[in-house]
Amino acid sequence: MTNSETTMDKIVSLCKRRGFIYPSSEIYGGLNSCYDYGPLGSELKRSLKDFWWKSMTQAHTEIHGLDSSILMAPRIWEASGHLENFTDPLVDCKACKSRFRQDKLDGATTCPNCGGEFTAPRQFNLMFKTFMGPVEDAANVVYLRPETAQGIYVNYQNVMTTARAKLPFGIAQIGKAFRNEITPGNFTFRTREFEQMEMQYFVHPTQDEQTMLSWKEKRRAWYKKLNIQDERLQFHEHKGNELAHYAKSAFDIEYKFPFGWSELEGIHNRTDFDLKRHQEFSGKNLQYFDEATKDKFIPYIIETSAGCDRTILCILCDAFVEEPERIVLKLAPFIAPIQVAILPLVKKDGLPDISNDISKSLQKLYRVSRDDSGSIGKRYRRQDEIGTPFCITIDYQTKEDQTVTIRNRDTMTQDRISISQIQTYIEPSLTPPID
Amino acid sequence: MTNSETTMDKIVSLCKRRGFIYPSSEIYGGLNSCYDYGPLGSELKRSLKDFWWKSMTQAHTEIHGLDSSILMAPRIWEASGHLENFTDPLVDCKACKSRFRQDKLDGATTCPNCGGEFTAPRQFNLMFKTFMGPVEDAANVVYLRPETAQGIYVNYQNVMTTARAKLPFGIAQIGKAFRNEITPGNFTFRTREFEQMEMQYFVHPTQDEQTMLSWKEKRRAWYKKLNIQDERLQFHEHKGNELAHYAKSAFDIEYKFPFGWSELEGIHNRTDFDLKRHQEFSGKNLQYFDEATKDKFIPYIIETSAGCDRTILCILCDAFVEEPERIVLKLAPFIAPIQVAILPLVKKDGLPDISNDISKSLQKLYRVSRDDSGSIGKRYRRQDEIGTPFCITIDYQTKEDQTVTIRNRDTMTQDRISISQIQTYIEPSLTPPID
Repeated sequence: MTNSETTMDKIVSLCKRRGFIYPSSEIYGGLNSCYDYGPLGSELKRSLKDFWWKSMTQAHTEIHGLDSSILMAPRIWEASGHLENFTDPLVDCKACKSRFRQDKLDGATTCPNCGGEFTAPRQFNLMFKTFMGPVEDAANVVYLRPETAQGIYVNYQNVMTTARAKLPFGIAQIGKAFRNEITPGNFTFRTREFEQMEMQYFVHPTQDEQTMLSWKEKRRAWYKKLNIQDERLQFHEHKGNELAHYAKSAFDIEYKFPFGWSELEGIHNRTDFDLKRHQEFSGKNLQYFDEATKDKFIPYIIETSAGCDRTILCILCDAFVEEPERIVLKLAPFIAPIQVAILPLVKKDGLPDISNDISKSLQKLYRVSRDDSGSIGKRYRRQDEIGTPFCITIDYQTKEDQTVTIRNRDTMTQDRISISQIQTYIEPSLTPPID
Repeated sequence: MTNSETTMDKIVSLCKRRGFIYPSSEIYGGLNSCYDYGPLGSELKRSLKDFWWKSMTQAHTEIHGLDSSILMAPRIWEASGHLENFTDPLVDCKACKSRFRQDKLDGATTCPNCGGEFTAPRQFNLMFKTFMGPVEDAANVVYLRPETAQGIYVNYQNVMTTARAKLPFGIAQIGKAFRNEITPGNFTFRTREFEQMEMQYFVHPTQDEQTMLSWKEKRRAWYKKLNIQDERLQFHEHKGNELAHYAKSAFDIEYKFPFGWSELEGIHNRTDFDLKRHQEFSGKNLQYFDEATKDKFIPYIIETSAGCDRTILCILCDAFVEEPERIVLKLAPFIAPIQVAILPLVKKDGLPDISNDISKSLQKLYRVSRDDSGSIGKRYRRQDEIGTPFCITIDYQTKEDQTVTIRNRDTMTQDRISISQIQTYIEPSLTPPID
């Protein structure tokens, strides 16, 4: 391993040091597999979610948004199959008490830690369970949703009716989901609490394959707009046993993380499985009526299901570059947590005022930070490390002729421009490519 | 009650009919007190959260964002006092089994429904409890956070260090919280799952009262930017028993809902209570070190804690107007779920193409909807009812001279402008007032 290789250690360290991501509840020793997004991380995550949302809903007038609740009627998880099937086989070592997912043991029959004997495997359901109302009995059990998709399926008719939608149409949703993973890991890649960005596209059953193809293309192109290096992305097709019981075909978009190729997003042809199940379990007619042909049928669903937290991790890994003189995060400028840094060169009569004025006017539109302390080189390095695309330096000359220098993060070149030109200069890079 | 009075029935009906808010899990008979935001509601909620976030963080470079996890170390709820004190006294009617919060019974000693006898009161903790990991024992209990504020307090040092912040500074967070309310109600006003928008401002202890005053003013002004009618807003000061154990002073911003004056947001002087408790329970030194004076002390906290769902409800109630010919939602244009409706007047050679071009170009920047069906009057009414500020009509003349008519929701006046002027015409109203 050379020094310039991106390792998880370097990413985790940067995240903690600069305020992208902290371990949750850290002053209390942390809470296993839970993380908090700090000032930079929360801005990055917001920008990412905003970009996904607008790419889906704003750019596609036939895709409608939804924000369904995390707590849902328990019967939904019977219909979806989660109560029955959403389990992992669990074994404990009788000697050292270590816990393993049996299916991840590569056939080992004794504990890899101490050689001890295993307990008999048992099926462990990954849904978090709680009770609604003051009585803790079976009638009051509710679950934290393990995926946001079911909230879309049970609202398919509500959305279709109120949005006056006709096939094909989509429903998009961003939200938290919870899975009581036995073995979470790889930092924020697999956590028990996580955020999904899911879009379900409802089509005539004959249109499923062509819709799959089209969404595969669109979704992969979306990561390119985020500046993700194309050679670090690949499709992985699910075959044979890999294919979920509800899927006719499935492709993952995988990213080459420091820990190997891993899934960012799944694109699935879920057929009419989900709506048929909800029709059966709810007793409601969920057929679509085609006014032109007078046909009634259950639409097929093409799903694009992306992990928000793992996309953030991918963005950070992909943007991380160690150069001899600096660490730089080559984030797509529109998504950078700080878009413009204001760096007054000297604390001198009038300069703070000019800096304030520039800052105040840019803050209406962009994420701006001010840094007054340390040498200019040191300040550039700080901004490079967090991916700030533009640094604006205010100096003596600014007071004379109303010009500033503006520095580009990636090329480190500087231009001298007038204050009135700043917005025109930065706007094209900072506008999210919504189309 | 006159016909033009805004009632909750009218609001609930509009929300369901037009896709703002649906009962959760509706095809399964609903889940008590849980709601799903539909296509219009989810856009409205996103815009509101975005406006709050940018008003807090982007407009104040000394306020930093945070997005902490919902599941947190249980010890946090010991320190905060929630495990001990976050309870309601509960009584059941022995005859009809109705359940009541004893403190809301106005001293009644028998069941208001059937006159039956009550059970002895018991303290019911409002936190939702679940288990992390496969073993359901006390060691693995975790809670769904009942407020987002504690996630801020336990990260105060992490944020301060990584953002290189000095007093005074703030931390802002938006996120879900959960309270197992005995008696939720008034539609989305009091629900078991809800979203908060909280900002905690850390100050020198001597600065608490002046900071309270300043945030009281700023927060009330914020609702005015949302077009909320000022005569429907008031401050309510907490006095005597109303004042929470952690607060030195507290003011609610209340809105006059159809069901009466009720809290939108609390502004609290929490003193050094929270950080002192976390210092005690975590064993970590949470003092602030003032480099100039060399003083060490625990900062005071001024909190602004707003309910996102109830602000949405307030916005809907406040904007709802019944006129003789129409229902109109007079939403602040920048927050409207659909900002521009494209209405091609006739389906005729060339018009769909022009409409598509206009739509495509506006979609990059705004939330756009297209409506091709029904008389133009009917289409205007549909848009009025969901608060669309601008309707653009494409007609025969458009093909001749590249002009469209653009109609204002509130005045119903129309202007004929050229296609190239559309953006300049609408932009000022659709830009959120971030300052």
